[in-house]
Amino acid sequence: MNTNEKREELKNLLGQVEDLHHASGVLGWDQQTYMPPRGAAARAQQLAILDKLAHESFTTDAIGDLLSDLEADAAKQDYDSDEASLLRVTRREYDKAKRVPPALIEDISRTTSLALESWTQARAESNFKIFQPDLEKIVELEIQLANCFGYTDRIYDALLDEYEPGMTTAQVAAIFDGLKQELLPLARAISQKTGRVDDRCLHRAYDEKKQWDFGVEVIQRLGFDFERGRQDKSVHPFTTGFGLGDTRITTRVDKHFLPMALFGTIHETGHALYDMGYRAELERTPLAGGASLGTHESQSRLWENVVGRSRGFWKFFFPRLRQVFPRQLAGQTVDSFYRAINRVHPSFIRVEADEVTYSLHILLRFELENDLIERKLKVADVPEAWNAKMKEYLGIVPPDAAQGCLQDIHWSGGSIGYFATYSLGSIFSVQLFDQALRDLPTLPKQIERGEFGELLKWLRANLHQHGRKFTLDELARKITGEPLQTRSYMRYLKTKFGEIYGL
Amino acid sequence: MNTNEKREELKNLLGQVEDLHHASGVLGWDQQTYMPPRGAAARAQQLAILDKLAHESFTTDAIGDLLSDLEADAAKQDYDSDEASLLRVTRREYDKAKRVPPALIEDISRTTSLALESWTQARAESNFKIFQPDLEKIVELEIQLANCFGYTDRIYDALLDEYEPGMTTAQVAAIFDGLKQELLPLARAISQKTGRVDDRCLHRAYDEKKQWDFGVEVIQRLGFDFERGRQDKSVHPFTTGFGLGDTRITTRVDKHFLPMALFGTIHETGHALYDMGYRAELERTPLAGGASLGTHESQSRLWENVVGRSRGFWKFFFPRLRQVFPRQLAGQTVDSFYRAINRVHPSFIRVEADEVTYSLHILLRFELENDLIERKLKVADVPEAWNAKMKEYLGIVPPDAAQGCLQDIHWSGGSIGYFATYSLGSIFSVQLFDQALRDLPTLPKQIERGEFGELLKWLRANLHQHGRKFTLDELARKITGEPLQTRSYMRYLKTKFGEIYGL
Repeated sequence: MNTNEKREELKNLLGQVEDLHHASGVLGWDQQTYMPPRGAAARAQQLAILDKLAHESFTTDAIGDLLSDLEADAAKQDYDSDEASLLRVTRREYDKAKRVPPALIEDISRTTSLALESWTQARAESNFKIFQPDLEKIVELEIQLANCFGYTDRIYDALLDEYEPGMTTAQVAAIFDGLKQELLPLARAISQKTGRVDDRCLHRAYDEKKQWDFGVEVIQRLGFDFERGRQDKSVHPFTTGFGLGDTRITTRVDKHFLPMALFGTIHETGHALYDMGYRAELERTPLAGGASLGTHESQSRLWENVVGRSRGFWKFFFPRLRQVFPRQLAGQTVDSFYRAINRVHPSFIRVEADEVTYSLHILLRFELENDLIERKLKVADVPEAWNAKMKEYLGIVPPDAAQGCLQDIHWSGGSIGYFATYSLGSIFSVQLFDQALRDLPTLPKQIERGEFGELLKWLRANLHQHGRKFTLDELARKITGEPLQTRSYMRYLKTKFGEIYGL
Repeated sequence: MNTNEKREELKNLLGQVEDLHHASGVLGWDQQTYMPPRGAAARAQQLAILDKLAHESFTTDAIGDLLSDLEADAAKQDYDSDEASLLRVTRREYDKAKRVPPALIEDISRTTSLALESWTQARAESNFKIFQPDLEKIVELEIQLANCFGYTDRIYDALLDEYEPGMTTAQVAAIFDGLKQELLPLARAISQKTGRVDDRCLHRAYDEKKQWDFGVEVIQRLGFDFERGRQDKSVHPFTTGFGLGDTRITTRVDKHFLPMALFGTIHETGHALYDMGYRAELERTPLAGGASLGTHESQSRLWENVVGRSRGFWKFFFPRLRQVFPRQLAGQTVDSFYRAINRVHPSFIRVEADEVTYSLHILLRFELENDLIERKLKVADVPEAWNAKMKEYLGIVPPDAAQGCLQDIHWSGGSIGYFATYSLGSIFSVQLFDQALRDLPTLPKQIERGEFGELLKWLRANLHQHGRKFTLDELARKITGEPLQTRSYMRYLKTKFGEIYGL
């Protein structure tokens, strides 16, 4: 084979691996949306064989040889080119995949299957002891996994890299330290002024079908294309995609809490617009999709918070929302509604947290995970350590483990190293939006008119089109001219919430 | 490995093949229910790779060797035993799968993908010429396929065997000849008495949601378990399953034709109850599922027609249906409704045909397919041959090809040899039901009381539990003491329709 033929053959083989990942994705989507209860056991087996085959088809010698053969040629290409990027990203993932023995993957798969059950039960009974033995195994397996991947500085680097390629623990810790110094005083100052925001209007009875339809109306305006995607219900909202033509989001509806479905839908739409936006040439290659979890979260947070919880956004949408729910929103104005959906309030549950306190939940998890993986903290001591940090960062202590260290599903699935990306995404979302404001000076006016096409076009051109070619930090530099920084984010939070709370 | 270990290893390998088939099944279900329009191209690729991997994982030397090693031992077991049956059925499928070169499979797959498009267009424009070149290729490929499988008597045997293992063309032809001699006079006699049945009440406006809910109420009473299955909408109703815990049906609703959703739902439930009924020990082996397409159709027809279109059934359900649709059914009685849903009327479209004329549509297709495969009929001459047989068997000639030889999707998908199983199923459904009546003398009274548990239990014990262990003919002998015969079926038709039409 000549170079061109080898490149085609590599793409052909990688395409089949992608197809298997997408097939697995369809099964996962179905599992969380429509699968009947008794289908669970067989589904776990179907997913296991697909994941095994995807791993096997990716780690073949054929792909390894093609990568080696093509790298010399790719090195001559521009770093940003599709070819150089394909070789670079595929090599990174190939080497990582080869380093993990299949027995360890199976061990993790088996352990996390059982752990999902024990965690579910533990949370239902609010009894950490039920989950503790499985979590102990998971921490040990994740340490093994990290050692397989290898690292130069801190062991946590190896796990973080799974979700945020190229990012180090030291970088994240520095970012979080800076954040902590500013967030804690901000949250404290707001806590002195809680009387300034009243969100009772959000807790009235909102017809579920009307909530759903309003959400669909909003996201169609944001650019969600129902020819290339759909929305369904699930217990935990998520976004998944099986190629450019099929990106799906889910949401959940709470009759007595309007923001649940509305902002959940907008959040997942942010993910979906990213997944719908890479260049068609990257389809069925490892470059298809989003750069990292942090980058992905920057898109969901940008649309949910920076755009969706802005005053300008509701200048356009509030009159329409009031048409749909005249009784529930009687007496409300754009301003009072804007304040209601931005109420700051320390709470136990991360996924319900406001923009100001959200990152404090993340800090806590990042620090505990590091201590666990570095064996500075025993699994048995997690509940106590959790509560101590909640007291320190949020000033409140969960009444039970269900509202404390058992609230998140992540650890039961072996996802250690994941949480930090939520905050990295929030930080990056504002850094990106600030750049968009510089490039598109009339953007605030467009948003007030319910026009989002320019913003989406800007995101497509600057971020989405690249797929997985670059790391978060590369993208930050390329798009905004500087690495990821918290300056924009903190200024955004202080300005927005300073105004709302009269600080 | 000792024999036990080999048996376990064989089951393990076959289990993975089943898992892949089920994964493919989930993708197929999604494709026809919820997939957004633009997802089609990627889905075709995902399905192709799954089918390729399922075929590859089944036709390995490892499985071949295990089969050879275990056959001596299995030969000592009872023919009916799980072990002997597993070896017998797996060997049959393994040898067939090995006989087809992968290149031919790919050729068929590619050709039928294109043919689906050309058939769709041809049907929309009612222009056979658009589909003709692809159908010519398909006939040639099916002849090749039949030659790969091999046959002793007629080439059509090899294709029929794909859908109805063990059945021969000569057997089917003999059955159909007998049927033809009795059906034609019956249909002719009825055509003299069309005034006796008025079905206008079925064409009123029926709220779609209420139709859906009534259907669900009916099938829950028949035994459909929504913990282990679900129902969704699709353009063409179908049943699919991914293991004992997850069997799904679909239906379609026509606001102005009540029987569409109602009997579609009951029909697919018949398939689903069969798929939910094999013994758990057969799960994840080639013995899971239904014996053949004809056997499967016996179950859908039994519930749809023999039970669902019986007077006793509506003695129970009609009062309830009239509660749901009081206005539409005003003035109707159990008897007038029973006659309406059993109206006999020669029509162009097979899937809309009544019980009497249905098999005439099948005869026509069976004869044309044989002529095509034996090269006695040119594809170009199909429309003319079709219309001639319609005239001969049903006394009517389709006004265009869309209502003639382009109406069925089967040929575009390469399914030649399939149609006969529809009639075999109808025939077997009555033979089975007659035996159930002998074994359960109070069954008619039970049905009038809306009690179906005993019938389902009887079907489970006599048929469903065996999964794919036996052929249709073996099952007929085992359950009814004689091979498949048309005597019961013709007596049933003559009695039922003789009474309705006063013959």
